[in-house]
Amino acid sequence: MKIVVDAMGSDRAPAVEVEGVMQAVEEFGYDVALVGDEALLKEALRKYKDYSDKISIVHAPERIAMNEPAALSVRRKRHSSIVIGMEMLKRDEADGFVSAGNTGAVVCAATLSLRLLPGIERPGIAIVIPTLTGASVMIDVGANIDPKPMHLFQYGIMADAYARYILHKENPSVGLLNVGEEESKGTDFAKEAHTLLSESKLNFKGNMEGRDIYAGSVDIIICDGFVGNVILKVSESVIDTIVKLLKNEIKANIIATLGAALASTAFNELKKKMDYSEYGGAPLLGVDGRCIISHGSSNPKAIKNAIRVAAEFKTQDVNRHIVEELESY
Amino acid sequence: MKIVVDAMGSDRAPAVEVEGVMQAVEEFGYDVALVGDEALLKEALRKYKDYSDKISIVHAPERIAMNEPAALSVRRKRHSSIVIGMEMLKRDEADGFVSAGNTGAVVCAATLSLRLLPGIERPGIAIVIPTLTGASVMIDVGANIDPKPMHLFQYGIMADAYARYILHKENPSVGLLNVGEEESKGTDFAKEAHTLLSESKLNFKGNMEGRDIYAGSVDIIICDGFVGNVILKVSESVIDTIVKLLKNEIKANIIATLGAALASTAFNELKKKMDYSEYGGAPLLGVDGRCIISHGSSNPKAIKNAIRVAAEFKTQDVNRHIVEELESY
Repeated sequence: MKIVVDAMGSDRAPAVEVEGVMQAVEEFGYDVALVGDEALLKEALRKYKDYSDKISIVHAPERIAMNEPAALSVRRKRHSSIVIGMEMLKRDEADGFVSAGNTGAVVCAATLSLRLLPGIERPGIAIVIPTLTGASVMIDVGANIDPKPMHLFQYGIMADAYARYILHKENPSVGLLNVGEEESKGTDFAKEAHTLLSESKLNFKGNMEGRDIYAGSVDIIICDGFVGNVILKVSESVIDTIVKLLKNEIKANIIATLGAALASTAFNELKKKMDYSEYGGAPLLGVDGRCIISHGSSNPKAIKNAIRVAAEFKTQDVNRHIVEELESY
Repeated sequence: MKIVVDAMGSDRAPAVEVEGVMQAVEEFGYDVALVGDEALLKEALRKYKDYSDKISIVHAPERIAMNEPAALSVRRKRHSSIVIGMEMLKRDEADGFVSAGNTGAVVCAATLSLRLLPGIERPGIAIVIPTLTGASVMIDVGANIDPKPMHLFQYGIMADAYARYILHKENPSVGLLNVGEEESKGTDFAKEAHTLLSESKLNFKGNMEGRDIYAGSVDIIICDGFVGNVILKVSESVIDTIVKLLKNEIKANIIATLGAALASTAFNELKKKMDYSEYGGAPLLGVDGRCIISHGSSNPKAIKNAIRVAAEFKTQDVNRHIVEELESY
């Protein structure tokens, strides 16, 4: 098993990537190719045990920054870590690719280099979110901000395979995010997507509302990439705001400060439950390859788990399941 | 000042509405017409001081339930509290209307009975949300789930008047919710709305992301009604989920339980800050009248404050400001 890791993606690259790769090599024994600035990577690797039999460096003189326009940067920076890593995947020199870099650029490079799976018209990013009852998959969270109803049906097929073969959910239930539960609710777009999902072989439970997401009412939440992107960012922001407001309140009150110190065990347990890094990253589903996109603020554990998930996609042959399922329609 | 209150709207109608009306009459001295089932209302009023000089009952034999399809129920239930109340407003028998009932039905009845203000093509619901720096207005949160870019420009003009004359914000800043901050981001719809807002006289700050909402980066957040509706519901759900998870963690740990008891002062202060009932309800902007929509789970305080806001819309002549501003384009 060999995974390519974009070493220049995260906010603290390449230190976080190198540390995550070391953990993955020690824990799983995979081979890893680190793509990035050779000098920086050699320097970063120096403080770890020598794994030169397992870890190789592939020099990439260019780097695509977080805010660069996706399509343009992929076309212009042919020697960036994202483009070089993706090309290795295309040439079958590796089994999967992990990047914590510019999401748009990864989507664009993957679509251009790897092409889409037969029957898939657009890729989708699937993310695991923690819920009251465990964890659910939300797709799409930003690969495609202006999809057609048919794309949402395809997201359903892809997420179903992800949930079954990677998250080991049996007959995963599927909900369509809408502004009301009744079949007649929503835009024409939502109604058409509802019809396609109803007619599918998926375990479709109909429309669901924003308030149902974290309650864990379904295993798979389907939405367009614009809405999914906004939901993720709003959710993070609500949590940050609560923590900040609580901190201010607590500072203003000595009894509360003592109380908060005592309650901190509970907060820490909670934090662990909400820890996105457990899931390691979000697969870009629908491309003919295995790409895992990690958060820009990933820690080494998130990178390690993203490498694990990329390998599982290969072992479980998820893409074959997607193609076969689509062929059955 | 006379306000019509739909007495049959909220989850605990008419008790909550009657209690809220009593508070409003005692605190502000307004006249109020309660529209709903006469027998129920007479019964509910019996336990309060006699304000029959201030409070009148208008009998409405029908009631539109929360889940009824909006347009159909408004057409069929001509004797419902929502339709009868709105008709009173139309005939100038009152200065404003408050309902905690079926939002879609209120929007539909208002649009049909009152008609739109000159220059407005679609109404929008504006809601006040608490932020780290105070409070912001978000529009639209569900009146119109499939708007045109021009409608978003009109939301900007309407929310600007609301923020200036009711919330007393000077030169309120405006942001367009999008998936990135750069001008080039988003769907064609978002780009067109960006252009219209850029060319307006509003204090437009450009695109903003989901994570900026609760940070309070702008005074007015503009989005389409589908996204706004999802954001509201997701936000409520994130808070509920955190509280539930924390409660479970805390129960499992005796030290944490003690800590939580001590910290409860801080939690209560925080809760007060997040208390939507302070703002009383969300105005339906753009109709030729004053309609305030309250949450179905409103408490009496929320109803009282909704009545206050309806009266302020009259006193401040907000609709005239909206029309004059639009005429200047």
